[in-house]
Amino acid sequence: MLKAIQNLGSSTTTTTTTTTTTGFVASFYRLKPPHATTTSAFVSVSSSLLSYYSPRTRPIKPLLFLTRKTRSLEPVRAQTRSESKMDGTSSSSSVAVHSSGSVRKINFCQWCGGQTKHDIPDGEEKMRAICTVCGKITYQNPKMVVGCLIEHDNKVLLCKRNIQPSFGLWTLPAGYLEIGESAAEGAIRETWEEAHAEVEVVSPFAHLDIPLIGQTYIIFLAKLRKPHFSPGPESLECQLFSLDDIPFDSLAFSSMAVTLKLYIEDVKAGSRKFHYGTINKRYFTMHFLY
Amino acid sequence: MLKAIQNLGSSTTTTTTTTTTTGFVASFYRLKPPHATTTSAFVSVSSSLLSYYSPRTRPIKPLLFLTRKTRSLEPVRAQTRSESKMDGTSSSSSVAVHSSGSVRKINFCQWCGGQTKHDIPDGEEKMRAICTVCGKITYQNPKMVVGCLIEHDNKVLLCKRNIQPSFGLWTLPAGYLEIGESAAEGAIRETWEEAHAEVEVVSPFAHLDIPLIGQTYIIFLAKLRKPHFSPGPESLECQLFSLDDIPFDSLAFSSMAVTLKLYIEDVKAGSRKFHYGTINKRYFTMHFLY
Repeated sequence: MLKAIQNLGSSTTTTTTTTTTTGFVASFYRLKPPHATTTSAFVSVSSSLLSYYSPRTRPIKPLLFLTRKTRSLEPVRAQTRSESKMDGTSSSSSVAVHSSGSVRKINFCQWCGGQTKHDIPDGEEKMRAICTVCGKITYQNPKMVVGCLIEHDNKVLLCKRNIQPSFGLWTLPAGYLEIGESAAEGAIRETWEEAHAEVEVVSPFAHLDIPLIGQTYIIFLAKLRKPHFSPGPESLECQLFSLDDIPFDSLAFSSMAVTLKLYIEDVKAGSRKFHYGTINKRYFTMHFLY
Repeated sequence: MLKAIQNLGSSTTTTTTTTTTTGFVASFYRLKPPHATTTSAFVSVSSSLLSYYSPRTRPIKPLLFLTRKTRSLEPVRAQTRSESKMDGTSSSSSVAVHSSGSVRKINFCQWCGGQTKHDIPDGEEKMRAICTVCGKITYQNPKMVVGCLIEHDNKVLLCKRNIQPSFGLWTLPAGYLEIGESAAEGAIRETWEEAHAEVEVVSPFAHLDIPLIGQTYIIFLAKLRKPHFSPGPESLECQLFSLDDIPFDSLAFSSMAVTLKLYIEDVKAGSRKFHYGTINKRYFTMHFLY
């Protein structure tokens, strides 16, 4: 397995690396910025060659390789709808969409219906779908998935999925952020929809980018307003798990495995940090067009 | 001015409220989660009635009103491309797009070219554009704008815009996150494009949602790898400003004004926190469809 870890931090970072049995490497950066009284954590999860944008050596250059391995994550069996559905269709199949490939799928202008051409517009550096009739460009950008990590009596709430993909596997309640809501509101909504749990957001916990599929996970720590929950239509069951009992061998999404591992580390350390990082998977190839 | 502040924090929060001369109210929440050794800050900026999703009283209920006013933000003159362009077109006009209105603009399927209908699909609660030929749904989701707040010799780097909207006004280097890059990579890229500055990301600094226009700002603290910068094609000039000299009366975007105010507060307090919050503007009406 190729271990390529993006070093986002400074020389003051300390790093630990985690290897899964299903093809990704996680590296957790703890760094303390100059003057800072608080600590943020950087996370990078990768199993493919992680490239890094450098303005001096465009288009890309590979980054730091780390070898220190301290522990193992449990398997994450399935790639998920949330981690695969990039083209906005209602298809539930697991589709890897590269930064250029996604644009190539846009054949028509959604405003006028004209055919599109795929070209790099003047003043830009990236391939776009440009309408040959009205000239409008259909931009595609990463999507945010928002969710809650609910703490209750030293346990966390997980939902067993009642939909494909990853049917029957466990996840934190989460879903796509909608226009018109904040990330926290979206996380609260998704938690209600999937677990019928009324929660209060306590603090932001993790921002995990998955560049290869154009997704960003924003996870909040939350607490139950009332100790009631029950499965929504998309869940088979909902259950509070003590940290020792979290079913890492049947989690639906690698993002959730990373989030829960970070949380367990924070609990053991007696603190809650905000974590930022990147997840890259071996079954994707990375393409930069700029 | 209607002051409606979203209380995302717990009872341990302390709150200060800031009023601008151009129509938004900012409230900054500092909270310390249970067990936390670090502090996160919640921010809410609003001038319209901020409503809050509650699973018990769906669809929405208004939230906490705060009156404590401690200081004033300087004017933010213009709404910006970044804060207005929601429909993916190349138009530079300032367009307010509501959560339903944006869907109504999608007339054709981008995959097959078929006409769309606007309806709530089975199992969903939100209006979508559904192709009447192939059945695919064109989802629209908020977009991320990523940028850098570059610290150098107790100054910060700003760029004067060379493009509309907000031509001639100052901003932090920032732009839309692209598929295939992490938020930090996108922020580094935008900084290079707009300021020809080679930077290293130090830590995440702010996550600011603007739900009414479907945008989320992700701002990183960064430092110059080399003390060189010069305006890119989208900038008239780039300049380091001491904190006392930041041109708050000619900033392009409210999100940047909020970010810089938070930063100044952090510097005065001798710490750097991660901030999360919401910006709402009076010239938008809020619509929830769920």
